Amino acid sequence: MKKKNNPSCDWKTPLTEKAPLTDKNRIYQHKGDCSWKGIPTEKYKDTEESWSSILRRVLIGDRGEDTRFHVRYFEIEPGGFSSFEKHRHSHVVIVIRGKGQIRIGEKTKTISYMDTVYIKGLTPHQLRNPYSEAFGFLCIVNSRRDRPRLLK
Amino acid sequence: MKKKNNPSCDWKTPLTEKAPLTDKNRIYQHKGDCSWKGIPTEKYKDTEESWSSILRRVLIGDRGEDTRFHVRYFEIEPGGFSSFEKHRHSHVVIVIRGKGQIRIGEKTKTISYMDTVYIKGLTPHQLRNPYSEAFGFLCIVNSRRDRPRLLK
Repeated sequence: MKKKNNPSCDWKTPLTEKAPLTDKNRIYQHKGDCSWKGIPTEKYKDTEESWSSILRRVLIGDRGEDTRFHVRYFEIEPGGFSSFEKHRHSHVVIVIRGKGQIRIGEKTKTISYMDTVYIKGLTPHQLRNPYSEAFGFLCIVNSRRDRPRLLK
Repeated sequence: MKKKNNPSCDWKTPLTEKAPLTDKNRIYQHKGDCSWKGIPTEKYKDTEESWSSILRRVLIGDRGEDTRFHVRYFEIEPGGFSSFEKHRHSHVVIVIRGKGQIRIGEKTKTISYMDTVYIKGLTPHQLRNPYSEAFGFLCIVNSRRDRPRLLK
């Protein structure tokens, strides 16, 4: 899946993979290993190496919900990383699987289970998994948000 | 702490317990048992029995963040329950500790670790813990939201 123009957590879900847009009550049962019944897995492979080895599961935001936020689960495989980027909107990250590193501005920290990070708007940031097990986290963002800008 | 007029998850944090309002990057380290360094625990005891045995930790929303959502952790002790209520805004609940029951409209379901619930606006709902261990969940809501209405 090559999408040179959108190498970011905010790649678009193809319409064909989207469930009907209906604002109704839902319970997504956890199947184990941070996958949920009724939530598809989307994989992203970027050929330009700004991104590597990431999957996404959109828990809230793709199915007609009226929230002003989206809740996504991302999982970075060992050796993988997200693009180094910034944007005006802020990010909330809550680790729910394994551990990884987060670069926020000039700092890099190791984060693990349930550590919660608030990344203020316009802060350069990147998530990496230099460890041997999957690194998974919830990422909550405003539903209306600007497009990320890639950094070097 | 008796607050007859606000027996809901949305009770107000006393100003004295709030950290300074600054929009800055933050990492809240998980200390174990769903408590976080830098995040105070607030307890609610209602004398009218619409609520019982609940604590709250506001992860995102009380400290000057510019998100359009708030992330709160609630924990209901064995035997405890939230008020049966409805409101126009929708709710997202993600279980991170133990298990409990959720009543959504006419249905009641048991939910456990990482089960994720979307409660559409205006749906009567309640969370209960009839089990023997603590039931804890993240609850994500719009930062601007209407006041809940208690139901019988």
